[in-house]
Amino acid sequence: MKKFTFDIAAKDGKARTGQINTPRGEIRTPAFMPVGTAATVKAMMPENVRATGADILLGNTYHLMLRPTAERIDALGGLHKFMNWDRPILTDSGGFQVMSLTGLRKLNEEGVKFKSHIDGSVHHLTPERSMEIQRLLGSDIVMCFDECTPFPAEESVSLKSMQMSMRWAERSREAFGDRPGHALFGIQQGSVFKDQRQESADKLRAIDFDGYAVGGLAVGEGQEAMFDVLDYAPGMLPDDKPRYLMGVGKPDDLVGGVKRGIDMFDCVLPSRSGRTGQVFTRRGAVNIKNARHQDDPRPLDENCTCPTCQNYSRAYLHHVFRAQEIISSMLLTWHNLHYYQELMAGMRAAIADHNFAAFEKDFHDQRAMGDIDRL
Amino acid sequence: MKKFTFDIAAKDGKARTGQINTPRGEIRTPAFMPVGTAATVKAMMPENVRATGADILLGNTYHLMLRPTAERIDALGGLHKFMNWDRPILTDSGGFQVMSLTGLRKLNEEGVKFKSHIDGSVHHLTPERSMEIQRLLGSDIVMCFDECTPFPAEESVSLKSMQMSMRWAERSREAFGDRPGHALFGIQQGSVFKDQRQESADKLRAIDFDGYAVGGLAVGEGQEAMFDVLDYAPGMLPDDKPRYLMGVGKPDDLVGGVKRGIDMFDCVLPSRSGRTGQVFTRRGAVNIKNARHQDDPRPLDENCTCPTCQNYSRAYLHHVFRAQEIISSMLLTWHNLHYYQELMAGMRAAIADHNFAAFEKDFHDQRAMGDIDRL
Repeated sequence: MKKFTFDIAAKDGKARTGQINTPRGEIRTPAFMPVGTAATVKAMMPENVRATGADILLGNTYHLMLRPTAERIDALGGLHKFMNWDRPILTDSGGFQVMSLTGLRKLNEEGVKFKSHIDGSVHHLTPERSMEIQRLLGSDIVMCFDECTPFPAEESVSLKSMQMSMRWAERSREAFGDRPGHALFGIQQGSVFKDQRQESADKLRAIDFDGYAVGGLAVGEGQEAMFDVLDYAPGMLPDDKPRYLMGVGKPDDLVGGVKRGIDMFDCVLPSRSGRTGQVFTRRGAVNIKNARHQDDPRPLDENCTCPTCQNYSRAYLHHVFRAQEIISSMLLTWHNLHYYQELMAGMRAAIADHNFAAFEKDFHDQRAMGDIDRL
Repeated sequence: MKKFTFDIAAKDGKARTGQINTPRGEIRTPAFMPVGTAATVKAMMPENVRATGADILLGNTYHLMLRPTAERIDALGGLHKFMNWDRPILTDSGGFQVMSLTGLRKLNEEGVKFKSHIDGSVHHLTPERSMEIQRLLGSDIVMCFDECTPFPAEESVSLKSMQMSMRWAERSREAFGDRPGHALFGIQQGSVFKDQRQESADKLRAIDFDGYAVGGLAVGEGQEAMFDVLDYAPGMLPDDKPRYLMGVGKPDDLVGGVKRGIDMFDCVLPSRSGRTGQVFTRRGAVNIKNARHQDDPRPLDENCTCPTCQNYSRAYLHHVFRAQEIISSMLLTWHNLHYYQELMAGMRAAIADHNFAAFEKDFHDQRAMGDIDRL
């Protein structure tokens, strides 16, 4: 069995580019992982997700454990076969979604009891059960079960939460065991408190993981506060392991994250926005539902090589969005995922060329020039 | 400009196979036309509709005239460019949908006044306006504006309706003018009354069209009554011109229609069913939502070469349907359209081999063997 390894090819400031190697294929970093919540990246065929440049998908433990269930996916040959994606999959621990269930959950040292949003059935998620579910799914990169500390949190509340997550990290490591070719990532917590981030990082390093996530961000603190934490938090984690910023983000979040030493991202934004008519371009985001697009024969971006921009006008995209046609979600999601992957590829190339500062300046200059109407 | 022509390559009983030639490409007959109501075959990329074997799509005048409007599509370069489909398009006249608007319409000799279901605006559809709209859309095969006689209809009511449709056929022909490379089809009416079908056919032949539809069927009369009419109605129309059975149908309707001399069909059934979880196979129709599929690792049909059957289990299709994922509509529509096109290809080959009776027997034998559970 091939091992799970991470090779950094080049650094530019704190930014790094390289490759994570797994038995299911390589992941070029910095990497953006599209989200395939319920065993599908919504409105996309998996081969088309791959065509956008995605090397890895994220699957959601919470959704899959409830429907169709991890045991069923295991019996059917695992998540890769089930959803027709043979490249790497990272699964979250289920913790984040469970904690978001207001009123339905009960948290203690053992884990979390909660009711399914689908049928009201009661489930118990613990570090051990989360590891079991992620194993049954066949996940290549498994995430520790942790509590994503809500924001804002009192310092003492954050400390207690982080310390429990670190105990859960130990239990996750123990339950994960030795699985060559599969990776387990620890998750740093500590909210916006630098000493807590350091304590969390120290504890995770002592346990030893294959990669490390910066958790507890993108939970309402805003970009400025997030960047403040990212100015120091990634540096507390091992330099030679992948660093993953969970649930992030908008294009400028990705650029700012990479600049601060992040190697991996995931976010529903490009796919969810595709369904709500929000389009990402080098000139920023626009909403296709706006009437100004209805007679516009131009593609979203004439420089974009995605099938949406190659074959369809803004007028068509406006029409199918207004008519609530499924192809609207298909075409806009495809474009958005393509844009995100192009952005990642651009950053990888810029870092390799030791040219990241110029890339970042151009990125912001383009957005300052006005939206796609000015193209 | 190339002409619009129809070549019959072989006959077997009343069944015929051949090719309609248009400047935008050939249409192999008997042909099934997927429906692209609002400038999209719902849940499908047009290149994938083509990949199923479709040579021609149907567009709906009623929907397109209201949104985005024919004038807008014309200004944007026509429907083919707008929806990224460069092969032939047939448009209906708008009449059928307008007549279906209970309470919103007013019909007289001049045409039909109606209110848009989208914004309540008032529109007037006449033979002349229908021809203009279909020209603006850039339709390759234009349908006469007619009244689809409701079923059941008193003999006298049907006669009056048919005779008005024949006057509208004359006005349609006059308004269509001379457009090389574009075809105008007349539509036979007369409900289930043989003498009226004959009178209608005679009047249409006197006007002279590039093809002829059998109209007023599949409106609630049932398959037996429909086949009764099809036993004589197609034979009243010119043998050397394409014959089109509008709005039909289920797989066994298609086989019965071809047997009775029909060359073209259109129906929303394979695409609509794809969205509601109904799957068509050589063993008949099944609903993927049924719990018996939830652990089934088999494809819908191991003999089917569509991407859905090549890459996904019944269990996955069940899961994504239950989870209301968009990919469910995408995959099931793709399979259904593929099945329909395979059925047409099978009939074309059987007619060419003078083997249609054996094909028909095998078609019915397969369906009698039990559904896909028995595969």
